[in-house]
Amino acid sequence: MTLFFEDLSVGDEQTSGEYEVTEAEIIEFAEQYDPQWFHLDADRAADESMYGGLIASGFHTASMSMRLLVDSFLDDAATLGAKGVDRLRWQKPVRPGDVLSVRTEILEREIETDRRGVVRAKVETETRNGEVVFSMIGLVMFARRND
Amino acid sequence: MTLFFEDLSVGDEQTSGEYEVTEAEIIEFAEQYDPQWFHLDADRAADESMYGGLIASGFHTASMSMRLLVDSFLDDAATLGAKGVDRLRWQKPVRPGDVLSVRTEILEREIETDRRGVVRAKVETETRNGEVVFSMIGLVMFARRND
Repeated sequence: MTLFFEDLSVGDEQTSGEYEVTEAEIIEFAEQYDPQWFHLDADRAADESMYGGLIASGFHTASMSMRLLVDSFLDDAATLGAKGVDRLRWQKPVRPGDVLSVRTEILEREIETDRRGVVRAKVETETRNGEVVFSMIGLVMFARRND
Repeated sequence: MTLFFEDLSVGDEQTSGEYEVTEAEIIEFAEQYDPQWFHLDADRAADESMYGGLIASGFHTASMSMRLLVDSFLDDAATLGAKGVDRLRWQKPVRPGDVLSVRTEILEREIETDRRGVVRAKVETETRNGEVVFSMIGLVMFARRND
């Protein structure tokens, strides 16, 4: 069953599956999109970084969170893409071995045109011990159940 | 020469090099991090999507912009990572063949501790014809020139 804008209510909550972060993937993402040494070089990061070890690129964490959102929610919805994100924060470093999951809560919904509405949703990514490592407020468009 | 917090002033502007967006990379990123059909299936996107063709995942655009920022600026700076991003917006779809570049402007700077400061910087990603496709305000930490 496809979820349309009309099926989404303020207060609705969702929890995703899990995503295991590996050192190999942290390095692979960083080589392509964020080649800073504390995302690439585990030895130097352990010795010199204020984080005490290799950490994932911030946009890698955002991208892994996106994958969890698609698999748990957006894949079943008539999504039309997102307009943007507010208050994106990398609260804690994400490290090899962390297992991430995402909680979402719908904060607001607004009809935009005859064909679509926009939902503001809080997104929080946490590790298995419940520490929030990443959060943002997404502005996501959904088709209306018109036709 | 490494740029420290003290070397960065409000009003400083930078322009990056270029990043060419390919269909293959749009699909590869989407398969891993954002497997929605309008990022994966060029034929279906041409027929059914409101964008009229395949478009890059929003976090792919953010990640390509990050690569441009690292190569043009952050690689030469004593960056300590970013705290977050405000007002991230995907203004226009990014499509295969687009050639992106990034302009940055420092909006604010604030000393945070003896060892580091935070810079608020406007980041705008545009195509060769000068259309802004993506923007955000980054909150980036830099080491102070103390030691």
